[in-house]
Amino acid sequence: MSGNTFGTLFCITNFGESHGPAIGCVIDGCPPGMALTEADIQHDLDRRRPGTSKFVTQRNEPDAVEILSGVYEGKTTGTPIALLIRNTDQRSKDYGNILQTFRPGHADYTYWQKYGVRDPRGGGRSSARLTAPTVAAGAVAKKWLKEKFGTTFHACMTQIGEVPIGFESWDHVPNNPFFAPVADVSALEDYMNALRKSGDSCGARLRVVAQNMPVGLGQPLYDKLDADIAHAMMGLNAVKGVEIGAGFASVADKGSTHGDALTPGGFVGNKAGGVLGGISTGQDLDVSVAIKPTSSILIPRDSIDVAGQPTEVITKGRHDPCVGIRAAPIMEALLALVVMDHALRHRAQCGDVHVDTPDIAAAGRA
Amino acid sequence: MSGNTFGTLFCITNFGESHGPAIGCVIDGCPPGMALTEADIQHDLDRRRPGTSKFVTQRNEPDAVEILSGVYEGKTTGTPIALLIRNTDQRSKDYGNILQTFRPGHADYTYWQKYGVRDPRGGGRSSARLTAPTVAAGAVAKKWLKEKFGTTFHACMTQIGEVPIGFESWDHVPNNPFFAPVADVSALEDYMNALRKSGDSCGARLRVVAQNMPVGLGQPLYDKLDADIAHAMMGLNAVKGVEIGAGFASVADKGSTHGDALTPGGFVGNKAGGVLGGISTGQDLDVSVAIKPTSSILIPRDSIDVAGQPTEVITKGRHDPCVGIRAAPIMEALLALVVMDHALRHRAQCGDVHVDTPDIAAAGRA
Amino acid sequence: MSGNTFGTLFCITNFGESHGPAIGCVIDGCPPGMALTEADIQHDLDRRRPGTSKFVTQRNEPDAVEILSGVYEGKTTGTPIALLIRNTDQRSKDYGNILQTFRPGHADYTYWQKYGVRDPRGGGRSSARLTAPTVAAGAVAKKWLKEKFGTTFHACMTQIGEVPIGFESWDHVPNNPFFAPVADVSALEDYMNALRKSGDSCGARLRVVAQNMPVGLGQPLYDKLDADIAHAMMGLNAVKGVEIGAGFASVADKGSTHGDALTPGGFVGNKAGGVLGGISTGQDLDVSVAIKPTSSILIPRDSIDVAGQPTEVITKGRHDPCVGIRAAPIMEALLALVVMDHALRHRAQCGDVHVDTPDIAAAGRA
Amino acid sequence: MSGNTFGTLFCITNFGESHGPAIGCVIDGCPPGMALTEADIQHDLDRRRPGTSKFVTQRNEPDAVEILSGVYEGKTTGTPIALLIRNTDQRSKDYGNILQTFRPGHADYTYWQKYGVRDPRGGGRSSARLTAPTVAAGAVAKKWLKEKFGTTFHACMTQIGEVPIGFESWDHVPNNPFFAPVADVSALEDYMNALRKSGDSCGARLRVVAQNMPVGLGQPLYDKLDADIAHAMMGLNAVKGVEIGAGFASVADKGSTHGDALTPGGFVGNKAGGVLGGISTGQDLDVSVAIKPTSSILIPRDSIDVAGQPTEVITKGRHDPCVGIRAAPIMEALLALVVMDHALRHRAQCGDVHVDTPDIAAAGRA
Repeated sequence: MSGNTFGTLFCITNFGESHGPAIGCVIDGCPPGMALTEADIQHDLDRRRPGTSKFVTQRNEPDAVEILSGVYEGKTTGTPIALLIRNTDQRSKDYGNILQTFRPGHADYTYWQKYGVRDPRGGGRSSARLTAPTVAAGAVAKKWLKEKFGTTFHACMTQIGEVPIGFESWDHVPNNPFFAPVADVSALEDYMNALRKSGDSCGARLRVVAQNMPVGLGQPLYDKLDADIAHAMMGLNAVKGVEIGAGFASVADKGSTHGDALTPGGFVGNKAGGVLGGISTGQDLDVSVAIKPTSSILIPRDSIDVAGQPTEVITKGRHDPCVGIRAAPIMEALLALVVMDHALRHRAQCGDVHVDTPDIAAAGRA
Repeated sequence: MSGNTFGTLFCITNFGESHGPAIGCVIDGCPPGMALTEADIQHDLDRRRPGTSKFVTQRNEPDAVEILSGVYEGKTTGTPIALLIRNTDQRSKDYGNILQTFRPGHADYTYWQKYGVRDPRGGGRSSARLTAPTVAAGAVAKKWLKEKFGTTFHACMTQIGEVPIGFESWDHVPNNPFFAPVADVSALEDYMNALRKSGDSCGARLRVVAQNMPVGLGQPLYDKLDADIAHAMMGLNAVKGVEIGAGFASVADKGSTHGDALTPGGFVGNKAGGVLGGISTGQDLDVSVAIKPTSSILIPRDSIDVAGQPTEVITKGRHDPCVGIRAAPIMEALLALVVMDHALRHRAQCGDVHVDTPDIAAAGRA
Repeated sequence: MSGNTFGTLFCITNFGESHGPAIGCVIDGCPPGMALTEADIQHDLDRRRPGTSKFVTQRNEPDAVEILSGVYEGKTTGTPIALLIRNTDQRSKDYGNILQTFRPGHADYTYWQKYGVRDPRGGGRSSARLTAPTVAAGAVAKKWLKEKFGTTFHACMTQIGEVPIGFESWDHVPNNPFFAPVADVSALEDYMNALRKSGDSCGARLRVVAQNMPVGLGQPLYDKLDADIAHAMMGLNAVKGVEIGAGFASVADKGSTHGDALTPGGFVGNKAGGVLGGISTGQDLDVSVAIKPTSSILIPRDSIDVAGQPTEVITKGRHDPCVGIRAAPIMEALLALVVMDHALRHRAQCGDVHVDTPDIAAAGRA
Repeated sequence: MSGNTFGTLFCITNFGESHGPAIGCVIDGCPPGMALTEADIQHDLDRRRPGTSKFVTQRNEPDAVEILSGVYEGKTTGTPIALLIRNTDQRSKDYGNILQTFRPGHADYTYWQKYGVRDPRGGGRSSARLTAPTVAAGAVAKKWLKEKFGTTFHACMTQIGEVPIGFESWDHVPNNPFFAPVADVSALEDYMNALRKSGDSCGARLRVVAQNMPVGLGQPLYDKLDADIAHAMMGLNAVKGVEIGAGFASVADKGSTHGDALTPGGFVGNKAGGVLGGISTGQDLDVSVAIKPTSSILIPRDSIDVAGQPTEVITKGRHDPCVGIRAAPIMEALLALVVMDHALRHRAQCGDVHVDTPDIAAAGRA
């Protein structure tokens, strides 16, 4: 209830600060009996971690996860799974020059207003580093959903700054540092190199899909599946917009062309993005987000200090020139956590979760 | 937890179906001692209700609200406030021809998949009619926030179908049936008249703002203020996209121009939309949504029936050609409910809620 | 979260005051597809309602329940079930003489301290009348549990004032106004007649059991099944103590005689009361409560008025001389609501709910 | 929601198993700005820890707590406080002989039924060891409540097995290994020595009080203060009964003598135990519990094995002959956590928390 727990039945409680001794989370509600090792989790953490290319922050941490509880002889027991990630690279001196000022576009001002506390160590709790425990928990959800229903999650970059990125294939995503679904990323490299030289940062647009979705997930009226997806995505650092399916393009569309027609073989098109009336249709979930440019840049900005006097701010230290680059695995984790939670909620009330298509559906439900 | 309750401390539990005997909600957590009458609530219900112009559904209901509990001698007592709205115009025969088929883009398919039940009466629980209790509850939140902090909420239409609408003044909004912030709505009338003749429907884009916002509201990490706003807005029927502040325009922006500069006199610009790090800055909250075209149209669409056979669907009956037209008061209510909930959550942990500006802030916090 | 909602997945939100226009509740989370009519609910309401004998308050209300939503063509739809009970006998003038004073042992003092409001109408929200919606909701849970697992709930009086009541048979309970499990209640009648003449009130001890219990229900660590039962029972008006199984007799017991031995044919004895480690064993749940004497009596008591001056209080009006007499159906409802909620919680995480015995269990779980 | 989180606004999420690598908890919702060090927490952990006398289990662990997050420069930041306690003494071979059998009165049977998993390592999650994180979290709540309101918490033993213990003074409690409020504990020593020689175990009765209580805490209807206290206490391992104030003695009491009279100087008596109508009166909270005898004993008991065959069980290893002996600091922690949570809940809705007496109250509320 205090804001650091995600989910209602598959609950993730996140703790830690960017430059404290450790970060981590507790997963409560995981079904018992699933095989789980640290290796199952580490893979996604490695995809998210910094220091993997010159286009992301050079902070270098192994982000090695330790399972403290909830697993016995390689299987989940149904009790809380505590995951611990020790911080190992905490050069907080890098932040010395920003202690007395507020960065435009940064959370340091609002945290100070809310809590009356200024934790200058790398953004403290507002750091994107706190997405690591989310990714770790998401890996557990992904594993269960894949084993139960074959559901899989894929995210990719669709625009970086002013450069739109076409979609060629999910297969390209792991082969370049941008999570771009294209074979040739030279234009992106050129753009990012120029940006880094200028000391500036840029925004990004990303997309995440869930395939082989169970049908019927989502709790109307308020906790619709798409509402909970929007909550998850907008809660990701720097996100300023969320779309489901056709998104903002729906505004200029007509009813006669918008609704995805149903045929005995399934839906034709997916403007719905996999959700109707807040409940999954069984189509792919299809979600896009807009990520703003990082606020920590080398270009001076007007601001005030804690005494209210005007000043200029420059942020040295190690920062992502485009925080969106590392967002893909986080979005997959968030989407998996939402689907997982709704799978359990659906099972509680309706007793089963199933993958279905309109033609199967048409044969009737028991 | 079952999806029909909104909020954590200012909790709205919504019940009812479009064509059942009544709809309503229970508000739990309202502070005691606030003056409250049915007239305080009826005003916003009247702004939302159908039948007020030829551009909205001709279903005609007074939507008269009755306070059943929680108010004694004209003041809230701190106990649950139950609000009841009787349904009075339930011509469910209008829906007779769609009982055995699924409308493309409509929730009837997913409700049937989820619950194994087909309630054909006007969309049952998935009807936009269920936003009425939300609006009623929002009126209570708006009243408290206005009295405590001077916070006010305003929504308007910014695009209808392919027709963008400029912003002239909030004063125009109540003077036309489109909630448009412009003096001359003849272009909108022409567009909608043509649409109605064609039997089709269109999408819409709307914007809602909160002015005189308390600073410091929002619960990181997951229950950020903007995350909860996105949850609220995406949960509104037919919404396919949500933006905070600069929204999707952030993608092509740079860090050097995106972050709102701070000066002793306040923020310069509001690309943040009033939220940094998930916590309110004291700037106006500024939120936009995309609403898809209504799925109930007079133009035939391909679909299947409950036996899985291909068929054509035409929806007769009384429907909104642009469901976005009536969305403005609902968006105000939803935003007010989110702010109210976070005001109470903030008060619980931090003990006070205040309206602030950077210069006042700079003078220091106790 | 604000205290008027019971349960986490089978959620009851209760509203209303003793002398307002109506009381009721909203049930959220009921599984779809169960047959349900008002008659299913009315039976338990009739068992609880006042005016049925000279030993309970003479307030006479039909307590007729109306289902406002969530049921279509006689079956639950999976959406919220709103239940409404209009108040019809609100002689609040009876309370005129207690407006300015506080009754010793009554909630009027604490409500006034908490909310700053004095609602003199029959105890307002603190009235035992607010147990009626709980009983109504409990009837829905009882029906589902009986149909699914054969689980049944029975409560009885085991002591009234200084008079202990032996256990002969559950069959006697409906045949006397005391819910006593004995054939001859003349001693109880004599005791209560003398008590009424004296203008005093007395306490009571009651017991409730659940038979044919599913095994494995309960969420350790904190939301143990017995912990949630204790929460439910202690939350019932006037309850001052709760016991599970052997209860306080466990204090002087030894480990060698306390633990219920297991045999291939089942448990020997039930000192556990059906719960071990917070999880149901499949034995009967067995719970007892202590109910204090009603605070509204005709005998003068020392107190203070709202100005802090000493005064004497006598409560006229219609009151139960032993509020415990009507508690039996409420305890059944509360126990059923707890079991129902845990059945859904268990199903969410573990996927099935089953009734079992040690010998069946011993054959192994899949 | 999955059972391992305690509280709604001051939330404790508990993780770990008795013989895994670590146990701990995450506290979410702690107000910012309170001084906090590990020493503040360690004191209560030391009072609870095993190995401190011959009357408790000889498992010897330092139970050293590490604060992983939520504290910066010695003060709470308002973000989650993660507390870690490494397990250091995990001789699980002691339990080797009980792997295939169920101990009468023990949770191993129900955990196996619920989760389909048998974790033999010292009781796994059902071990009393998991109360250590609760005690650690309680120490944080105690500190805040003492600093804010002067509220303090004291628990003591009032009966051990068949030996009742009078009340002389709280001052004696820390001076003997039984948490007994008497100067001379030789009778208790004799009793326990005889019990240990017999290889048996015994029950206990304990009492906990909160002094200088704020008035007005508690959320009717369901989340009454006493209901939440009962939930907390019944959730403590081995508890079979809970009483508030007069408890079960209320059954044979009369209304004319039960209700605590009010005078300008305060209440006369405290049969209420500090709660009326579920809301704190400002009197001391006064709570008693019954604890059953430990199920792990050296005396053989009839049971079954996992194949359902009859067998005998003897539990070797290191166990508490009276688990109640170490319960006092846990009960203090639980009561503090409940009061803390309700203080924040009250502050959210009503805006203030205060300590009051009837005469002060009588002067009127703003």
